[in-house]
Amino acid sequence: MPFNRIAIGRTEEATHPDALKAALAEFISTLIFVFAGQGSGMAFTKLTDGGASTPAGLISAAIAHAFALFVAVSVGANISGGHVNPAVTFGAFVGGNITLLRGILYWIAQLLGSVVACLLLKFTTGGLETSAFALSAGVGVGNALVFEIVMTFGLVYTVYATAVDPKKGSLGTIAPIAIGFIVGANILAGGAFDGASMNPAVSFGPAVVSWTWTNQWIYWVGPLIGGGIAGAIYELVFINHSHEQLPSTDY
Amino acid sequence: MPFNRIAIGRTEEATHPDALKAALAEFISTLIFVFAGQGSGMAFTKLTDGGASTPAGLISAAIAHAFALFVAVSVGANISGGHVNPAVTFGAFVGGNITLLRGILYWIAQLLGSVVACLLLKFTTGGLETSAFALSAGVGVGNALVFEIVMTFGLVYTVYATAVDPKKGSLGTIAPIAIGFIVGANILAGGAFDGASMNPAVSFGPAVVSWTWTNQWIYWVGPLIGGGIAGAIYELVFINHSHEQLPSTDY
Amino acid sequence: MPFNRIAIGRTEEATHPDALKAALAEFISTLIFVFAGQGSGMAFTKLTDGGASTPAGLISAAIAHAFALFVAVSVGANISGGHVNPAVTFGAFVGGNITLLRGILYWIAQLLGSVVACLLLKFTTGGLETSAFALSAGVGVGNALVFEIVMTFGLVYTVYATAVDPKKGSLGTIAPIAIGFIVGANILAGGAFDGASMNPAVSFGPAVVSWTWTNQWIYWVGPLIGGGIAGAIYELVFINHSHEQLPSTDY
Amino acid sequence: MPFNRIAIGRTEEATHPDALKAALAEFISTLIFVFAGQGSGMAFTKLTDGGASTPAGLISAAIAHAFALFVAVSVGANISGGHVNPAVTFGAFVGGNITLLRGILYWIAQLLGSVVACLLLKFTTGGLETSAFALSAGVGVGNALVFEIVMTFGLVYTVYATAVDPKKGSLGTIAPIAIGFIVGANILAGGAFDGASMNPAVSFGPAVVSWTWTNQWIYWVGPLIGGGIAGAIYELVFINHSHEQLPSTDY
Repeated sequence: MPFNRIAIGRTEEATHPDALKAALAEFISTLIFVFAGQGSGMAFTKLTDGGASTPAGLISAAIAHAFALFVAVSVGANISGGHVNPAVTFGAFVGGNITLLRGILYWIAQLLGSVVACLLLKFTTGGLETSAFALSAGVGVGNALVFEIVMTFGLVYTVYATAVDPKKGSLGTIAPIAIGFIVGANILAGGAFDGASMNPAVSFGPAVVSWTWTNQWIYWVGPLIGGGIAGAIYELVFINHSHEQLPSTDY
Repeated sequence: MPFNRIAIGRTEEATHPDALKAALAEFISTLIFVFAGQGSGMAFTKLTDGGASTPAGLISAAIAHAFALFVAVSVGANISGGHVNPAVTFGAFVGGNITLLRGILYWIAQLLGSVVACLLLKFTTGGLETSAFALSAGVGVGNALVFEIVMTFGLVYTVYATAVDPKKGSLGTIAPIAIGFIVGANILAGGAFDGASMNPAVSFGPAVVSWTWTNQWIYWVGPLIGGGIAGAIYELVFINHSHEQLPSTDY
Repeated sequence: MPFNRIAIGRTEEATHPDALKAALAEFISTLIFVFAGQGSGMAFTKLTDGGASTPAGLISAAIAHAFALFVAVSVGANISGGHVNPAVTFGAFVGGNITLLRGILYWIAQLLGSVVACLLLKFTTGGLETSAFALSAGVGVGNALVFEIVMTFGLVYTVYATAVDPKKGSLGTIAPIAIGFIVGANILAGGAFDGASMNPAVSFGPAVVSWTWTNQWIYWVGPLIGGGIAGAIYELVFINHSHEQLPSTDY
Repeated sequence: MPFNRIAIGRTEEATHPDALKAALAEFISTLIFVFAGQGSGMAFTKLTDGGASTPAGLISAAIAHAFALFVAVSVGANISGGHVNPAVTFGAFVGGNITLLRGILYWIAQLLGSVVACLLLKFTTGGLETSAFALSAGVGVGNALVFEIVMTFGLVYTVYATAVDPKKGSLGTIAPIAIGFIVGANILAGGAFDGASMNPAVSFGPAVVSWTWTNQWIYWVGPLIGGGIAGAIYELVFINHSHEQLPSTDY
């Protein structure tokens, strides 16, 4: 269950062994996720000799991200909460579910995991480079920004409804699958227009390795806004008005 | 668990805060679902420069709809029951599981969610238009109508067997996956013939945005008939004859 | 949980209302399964104007069958046990888990469900015909027979391990997914050689509608042998030697 | 639940009936997994007349392996622990979760299962040969070795987090899906570069049948190192420091 251990973060220091363990778990989960996700794009490049994206390429990216994120969230769930995404961590912070210190630790771990995954991909593929996220022809900065906001809203809303909500019940069992699959579904839409990141760590690694920072801010601002709105709406409308229990002390 | 909160709707007004919250949940779920589902079709158009549909395009649409509907049902389950479909709401009304007032509220929320999703797609894709559902060459009105009836029968029968039936047991845990995946499977069949809507909201949004109403009635009448038959059969044959409990008061 | 209601069949007549309800459930489940499964092949034919099978076509068939069988097993699980396959029913009969009378009733329902699905497909597609299962060039009768035996062995072994075994525990929750997905995986292998039926009902419907009976026996003998071996091995080795409980009276 | 029965192996002989049953279960699970997985590659060869790999071919391989491994782990879970992979068994041995004797028995069963699967494929496909794993042009031995290490690390880490960890909770229910899907995701990345084995048994069968041993060692050394590191890190960091319970005696 994601977010399980977050409550601990409130009363203990970020330097507490558990916080460091959680950060290590975030690092490993993000590495596993980005390695398969970005690697699928590099496999497409390899098989097509750098050909233009096709529907089959988009399906490949969607399945790789859906399956790998589901797994990355699962394996981190009981240790760090399985955020694997700075936008999710930001949403948890805004909702009062993680301390600032622990949140920063998570961000560092997630960004580092993505960079290490991309470096490993560069080596293991015999020198191919993960290409940075970019806008397709005909897609403006404003379009891409809203795209990232809407898609990340869906992702973080899913995190809240299936993993954070104390009323989630048996949904908790399939929460990691839902979290992975909404990203896969959104890639099948947004992948052809702006790459469909929904996750600043996912776009940060390739940017570092290819040292391309054009429009990088879109993949930070979009997800943080979308995730923030989702967290705020879910907390205010669907959790806070419940009289039974206060989520902030329950998980 | 879908339908969880429906019982509340019977004794309270549609204007009760919970009914409005449920409608908001239906709006958000439908928006998330239609955004990924219709967006996947627009991505195919983008990648192929408006080329004719191919098996890869159908696979992309099937996976996008299967994954996104699974998620949309999950995130709405505990708040609104996760209908995300006027045909499902209609089936619930026919079966006596939701009041007329609440049902109308759900319909408005679902239709609005679809329209907003299509408007957002129009903007974020840089002006592409979601194309309306249409019949392929060689497919007549009667053929398409029966196609929608059969496919929606399968969908609503799945909703009843995995989510509504009080004897569902552990099936309830995977109900949202089953509901999403039957739609994905049916798209792989019907998508090449009539678009495979199974959901009036899904075909309504694109119709509004592209202002194309040809054969729109098929995507309303078909799903409502198919969903109604499924609900009636399941209630009469598989639920009502059970002596243990009356479902109408149990969930 | 598949097989849940099978025990009832032992002490009651096949004409008992519950037996008829179970048969109706098998009819509906098989109809839903075959409609999506065979329909996906007809969609491929439609989109490619009758072109030869491609890897994308095989993927489409695999996903359609995997998703639809998962759903068909789920929706029948609590009523009929969710066999959806004469080979599974045969395996249950050999293992002493269903009476002869009820087994015959199931077979009739499954075969009828498949035929009705194919007739509905013929009408809804505007007159296209479901093509019968056939062997690819270079594949002999003996090869195809063993192919069906091995694949159906895997399928029925999965049914036993995840749904019948009294020690199944939490595996029961994901049993329908496993049953659907092993068929999907096997189609990605066998689909290119003999169509990968693993289910006499699946190949019977198209044979009736297209009135093509060449090699039809392979799709009966192969699955029945494979399913029989799986059931016998699982019962003898993995269930009967358990001293804790006798499965024949436990579910 | 994988690893359930492993504890038994510590106090009993490998020749104990339960150890032989467990080995038989490993044999059958590996056979089912390799038959679908390798068979999907042979289907691609059949459909494309031996054409070069394409993104659609990679998707087919990824889905076949993901679905079939999920099922193979599921059906073996309660009998042998559902290793289906010498690297997983090695990781369990290093972590002290299986005796040397039982581990050797598992290895033999897994390798034998893979060889028999490939022999059956050779016959059923009418004489096609499973081609051995090989490196793509531009991929060196060192690159492939690290690729296998990273991918198998992700796989075995997933096994530990979702199936071995005593704190796994409801993750145990979806563990087999996670284990299958991380392999599917990794194939979408590594499949284009070194075949993405992550499992010495998977590469052993095709090597025997085609009698090609070039670089075979990579597919042994890589997975064993990757799996060993994952097991060691998970045990030391995430399990051993828990004061509540000692996993070595708990499952």
